[in-house]
Amino acid sequence: MEQLRVGMVGHAFMGAAHSQAWRTVNHAFDLPLQARMSVVCGRDEDRVAAAAATLGWEAHATDWRKVVARDDIDLVDICTPGDTHAEIALAALAAGKHVLCEKPLANSVAEAREMAEAAAAAQTRGVRTMCGFNYRRVPAVALMRRLVAAGRIGTVRHIRAVYLQDWIVDPEFPLVWRLRRDVAGSGALGDIGAHIVDLTQYVTGARITGVSALTETFVRERPLPTEAAGLSATGNGHAGSGEVTVDDAALFLARLDGGAIATYEATRFATGRKNGLRVELNGSLGSVAFDFERMNELEFYDATAPSDEQGFTRILVTEPDHPYMAAWWPAGHPIGYEHSFTHEARDLIAAIAAGEDPAPSFADALQVQLVLDAVERSAATSAWVPVEAELASV
Amino acid sequence: MEQLRVGMVGHAFMGAAHSQAWRTVNHAFDLPLQARMSVVCGRDEDRVAAAAATLGWEAHATDWRKVVARDDIDLVDICTPGDTHAEIALAALAAGKHVLCEKPLANSVAEAREMAEAAAAAQTRGVRTMCGFNYRRVPAVALMRRLVAAGRIGTVRHIRAVYLQDWIVDPEFPLVWRLRRDVAGSGALGDIGAHIVDLTQYVTGARITGVSALTETFVRERPLPTEAAGLSATGNGHAGSGEVTVDDAALFLARLDGGAIATYEATRFATGRKNGLRVELNGSLGSVAFDFERMNELEFYDATAPSDEQGFTRILVTEPDHPYMAAWWPAGHPIGYEHSFTHEARDLIAAIAAGEDPAPSFADALQVQLVLDAVERSAATSAWVPVEAELASV
Amino acid sequence: MEQLRVGMVGHAFMGAAHSQAWRTVNHAFDLPLQARMSVVCGRDEDRVAAAAATLGWEAHATDWRKVVARDDIDLVDICTPGDTHAEIALAALAAGKHVLCEKPLANSVAEAREMAEAAAAAQTRGVRTMCGFNYRRVPAVALMRRLVAAGRIGTVRHIRAVYLQDWIVDPEFPLVWRLRRDVAGSGALGDIGAHIVDLTQYVTGARITGVSALTETFVRERPLPTEAAGLSATGNGHAGSGEVTVDDAALFLARLDGGAIATYEATRFATGRKNGLRVELNGSLGSVAFDFERMNELEFYDATAPSDEQGFTRILVTEPDHPYMAAWWPAGHPIGYEHSFTHEARDLIAAIAAGEDPAPSFADALQVQLVLDAVERSAATSAWVPVEAELASV
Amino acid sequence: MEQLRVGMVGHAFMGAAHSQAWRTVNHAFDLPLQARMSVVCGRDEDRVAAAAATLGWEAHATDWRKVVARDDIDLVDICTPGDTHAEIALAALAAGKHVLCEKPLANSVAEAREMAEAAAAAQTRGVRTMCGFNYRRVPAVALMRRLVAAGRIGTVRHIRAVYLQDWIVDPEFPLVWRLRRDVAGSGALGDIGAHIVDLTQYVTGARITGVSALTETFVRERPLPTEAAGLSATGNGHAGSGEVTVDDAALFLARLDGGAIATYEATRFATGRKNGLRVELNGSLGSVAFDFERMNELEFYDATAPSDEQGFTRILVTEPDHPYMAAWWPAGHPIGYEHSFTHEARDLIAAIAAGEDPAPSFADALQVQLVLDAVERSAATSAWVPVEAELASV
Repeated sequence: MEQLRVGMVGHAFMGAAHSQAWRTVNHAFDLPLQARMSVVCGRDEDRVAAAAATLGWEAHATDWRKVVARDDIDLVDICTPGDTHAEIALAALAAGKHVLCEKPLANSVAEAREMAEAAAAAQTRGVRTMCGFNYRRVPAVALMRRLVAAGRIGTVRHIRAVYLQDWIVDPEFPLVWRLRRDVAGSGALGDIGAHIVDLTQYVTGARITGVSALTETFVRERPLPTEAAGLSATGNGHAGSGEVTVDDAALFLARLDGGAIATYEATRFATGRKNGLRVELNGSLGSVAFDFERMNELEFYDATAPSDEQGFTRILVTEPDHPYMAAWWPAGHPIGYEHSFTHEARDLIAAIAAGEDPAPSFADALQVQLVLDAVERSAATSAWVPVEAELASV
Repeated sequence: MEQLRVGMVGHAFMGAAHSQAWRTVNHAFDLPLQARMSVVCGRDEDRVAAAAATLGWEAHATDWRKVVARDDIDLVDICTPGDTHAEIALAALAAGKHVLCEKPLANSVAEAREMAEAAAAAQTRGVRTMCGFNYRRVPAVALMRRLVAAGRIGTVRHIRAVYLQDWIVDPEFPLVWRLRRDVAGSGALGDIGAHIVDLTQYVTGARITGVSALTETFVRERPLPTEAAGLSATGNGHAGSGEVTVDDAALFLARLDGGAIATYEATRFATGRKNGLRVELNGSLGSVAFDFERMNELEFYDATAPSDEQGFTRILVTEPDHPYMAAWWPAGHPIGYEHSFTHEARDLIAAIAAGEDPAPSFADALQVQLVLDAVERSAATSAWVPVEAELASV
Repeated sequence: MEQLRVGMVGHAFMGAAHSQAWRTVNHAFDLPLQARMSVVCGRDEDRVAAAAATLGWEAHATDWRKVVARDDIDLVDICTPGDTHAEIALAALAAGKHVLCEKPLANSVAEAREMAEAAAAAQTRGVRTMCGFNYRRVPAVALMRRLVAAGRIGTVRHIRAVYLQDWIVDPEFPLVWRLRRDVAGSGALGDIGAHIVDLTQYVTGARITGVSALTETFVRERPLPTEAAGLSATGNGHAGSGEVTVDDAALFLARLDGGAIATYEATRFATGRKNGLRVELNGSLGSVAFDFERMNELEFYDATAPSDEQGFTRILVTEPDHPYMAAWWPAGHPIGYEHSFTHEARDLIAAIAAGEDPAPSFADALQVQLVLDAVERSAATSAWVPVEAELASV
Repeated sequence: MEQLRVGMVGHAFMGAAHSQAWRTVNHAFDLPLQARMSVVCGRDEDRVAAAAATLGWEAHATDWRKVVARDDIDLVDICTPGDTHAEIALAALAAGKHVLCEKPLANSVAEAREMAEAAAAAQTRGVRTMCGFNYRRVPAVALMRRLVAAGRIGTVRHIRAVYLQDWIVDPEFPLVWRLRRDVAGSGALGDIGAHIVDLTQYVTGARITGVSALTETFVRERPLPTEAAGLSATGNGHAGSGEVTVDDAALFLARLDGGAIATYEATRFATGRKNGLRVELNGSLGSVAFDFERMNELEFYDATAPSDEQGFTRILVTEPDHPYMAAWWPAGHPIGYEHSFTHEARDLIAAIAAGEDPAPSFADALQVQLVLDAVERSAATSAWVPVEAELASV
């Protein structure tokens, strides 16, 4: 079978998740291309060598520029912090490689626009790009979209979206890279807020036209970490402390082009909520609700049912006729977080093999970036800020 | 308006619940008879006088024989422990009074049979009897019955019924009357097991034909109470201790005449379950499930719905087209435990006014007693015991 | 026992709920004053006469001015639409009557301020006032406040409050008085939004200092009702149609004086959510969450518990050591919506008997009105609007 | 790294699940042995060749006798129907191979005893055996055991265990091998009942000493399948029909040697319950409850907590200090069904590398078989049947 040779840059949390997907996708799905885990790239030689062994890559490298230039690589998978996305992606596209880039697409609208423009140019040469909004590929979310698209909830009036975490409530949690604006771009907003912006626009098919926002940093100074380690670093009293330069929480109201109104909240200070991505939509004929803490379930309210039988139906999205599920186990067997990445890899491989554009595109991801930018400007000015729709038409 | 003059015997927990019902029923429901709280009866003069004032009765008395003999009493409401039910009910029926008797109907099959026979005889003279299985009147339970009767779950195959409490887990909880066989008849079996026997037979329309049972008394000796006080007595070290002579828990398997098979469990040792009456029915076309801890909800699974939309629907049984609910508040307003008694009073008053027999009858309650008796005999012999169906035909 | 003679103005939904409370409160609670249901007042003679009979009032009247002037009335209970609150309350206070007034206190800040000032003046003469934010008296809400006040969740960082209903999703639902600004003041905002503003400020002890808001009216024209009937009127094609002049939904972000940030949403268009008043607080040491659809439960997360045992604990707020619950049934027996009013009556009677001021005061209710006013001004201007704190100090 | 060379027999549902485990285990866990997927064996050449490619095995074979005889195989993984377990396992043990055998261990007590004896003999030569009760390795179940073993719920009084499925409710579902006694041994009892017998004994550390049972076959004749296909075959009208020779449902009561009493239910006719393995334990100090439909959660009730804060705590078993979870993703990321097999492979590899006996042993699995046998004999005789404890001491 023809191969899709992957070079992955970055091997922390996202790198591990993507590796599990690349290792698994061809065993679960019948696809015309075979993913090959050719090379993983990281800055530190020892660490990347260990990661290659653990995660199952054939080789490792320390210079991403050489990786993207290799003839025997078909796709570059970018799993690094946001400040490096643009440079790597532009180089990969210039080298004619397909690109899968983690979200948020970039740390600024300017970078995201440059990437979207490069992707559009590359697309004319048959090069495919995709941004890694993996939650679209949770079966319950895909089913939500299917129900909405089929008109089962009618016209959407309300969107209620939160992404609640609690991993930095402890003020002694150190100043990791995700808490520094120069590396991460923003805090909860870009890290987890981006997901609910993309997800709600995806499932409704509508786009945010304006926002009113408020952000907060509850703990403004934190101990420096002894070494950067994603979400699980530990502080070191001797290392001193530094300023948190991103938001701990971002809240915003929004209007969407279909007439819906919405509340959004992304926070790392929701004590007890571990990974609480929740979305509810209320429409003229029904409602749907999803909570990632129970990712194998979707709640659906059908206002056209007999009146005394109406209620929220808890659909166990584990059956063969639910999106993606026929590939896995018999009825009633839950899947996990990592499967969203396997499904993402499946859809990307299928699109590449078919010569089609996968979704979400870099242009879609730029539009999310424009929303995030509007949120930050609204929070800074306490004013309503329209999303620059003309720029979103890339 | 014509009155229904009530004399109530007993004024502890059940007496308080019935009083709330008699006080409220004509305010919530439009009925052809007006309940009048004429007299409450108890053994202790001071206590019953206080109860009359607190609970809203016009008068009090200490001799139930005089109460049942009064010309100005239409209905006798029996809220005493089980060992006195038969004597009071028989006297009241002999005096031509309608009788509402708390469950279980009696402490033995012999007593229950005598009561059922007396009720049948009285019925020919227009006297009405009812046994107080109040959970039938929880709107969600009534809706369950309606759905089953309408064929929405098809043929019932499985019944899963538990009644879980935890109020005597503490071995220092004293030896109140409910733990003495001579007064209470049995323990968890008659007190709470009787409810799930009645409820499951009511909602399915089927009757238990045989059982295989097991009972257990986990704490066999307890401190004597300083004074009898229902469920909330406190022990007194000086009073010594005594033997628990009833079951703490009763478990049984059963077959029903419609072909269904069932598990039943009644226990006072389910730590953390306060009043966990739960029933689930699985049928050929769907299922229903109820949990009294969430008494305003009913779960319904419709196996005839589109396959990718199937799931348990959480019906909020708070809407005007649900049983009994039009009498209360607008959409979405929960009711409480006490409302089941108000609904019971409503149905009883309506039946008396219409000259019809209310349900459950004393014969229905005798049949429950026959099941409880079979359970005790099965537990004693470790054998399958058929329920004496011929006796249930009273 | 000394009596508290009540004259109630209005007898629709709120009047029925208050009547149930006045009828029940002295039976459930041991209080030094006996509530007496002296007179109910309404504009239509026939209707108010029927209501008096149904709800249990001794007499009825059609002129509230005469009712508030009667010597044999101690307390005026105002259950009318918001446009009449101020006039009735001011007259009652002038006549030296205690006043219980339904929420929102008034339809404008100016009216509310006049009422708060009059209440403050009357208070010096021993006259008591209370605004009927009944949800404070749900035991789970009272427990929430107790836990927060005891420091069990530490410093509050996040408030997430919604009040979701769906009763006017149908565009054929008629133009009842609650949809007319001249009578109701505002729509979802004042009717249900007021509850979550009061509730969250009550449980946290913090006050909203500024808001950013958005309101929407999804259905702008509706059929005229054949007769005004609260929430359950039916339209009449022959009556023509009219303009909806209030909001269907109101969304706002807020900051509170303790440093917390918040999202609020009140809507009548959340299909499937019948009475979904939900509040979640996230603090530095824990979280609490409440949903009125499961009003007998409170979820509590204790971040100081052993790390592998942490989770949201579903407390069944039905036990004797929970607020108000010792007055009702044994362990594990749920109560209903109406009990919040009985508890409100209990607290009001206890305060009057003790010569103390009940809460929430008219000043508290004015402060809620100031928040609602800021929300409307923010929605109109798309700008951040500070709540006028100086005015809230009445 | 030293290798553990695996030969797997059978490649249907269980074979696919085991393959996913063997492929993944060394990527998720740091282990001293590297699993190598050497060969997969099946009866049909074309099918097994396809399975080898899909599932990731280096080679395939059609004669299991040759596989177990190969020098380059260290472990035989038996994933076939129960009628072949004994023969394959005995041959593999005779050849000195470690053996992992799917549950139930065998189709009869005689076979299971022979296997347990052979395993005991092989153990003296350093050969390891394990039976695949994979649910022990669900992190929430492992946490349940940890809490019980630590005394957090005190003495266990009640066990409530059900395994509810609905995949053959449709009478047109064909007569697959699982519905034939000669191949499957029993129906719901051995297939899913075996899991809850093992799981409850595992988490409590107690053993079932006697049972009272009832079994039922609701649909006694079914269409013949066109080809055997596990759980998803489709009937063919032309193929005729045949008799179902196993139970559709099995219910039993039990006593355990620690004094607990229990109800068990295994059924394939619980409409709407897809894979509802649920276990609740009530102890003197607390309770735990698990539902596989929400496999990443454990409910824990701590009766030693402050009385007004008690309730069932929903622990999200997704945190690094929960069993097995440090190997996976950051806080709050659910895992799926397949992870239980990866954890099983991890524990087996670790035990082999350490020269220790993994659990559950064949002797443990024999004891489960003795319980299943007692259940069948009780169902046949309607009598209480003690479990033959002396035989369980192998």
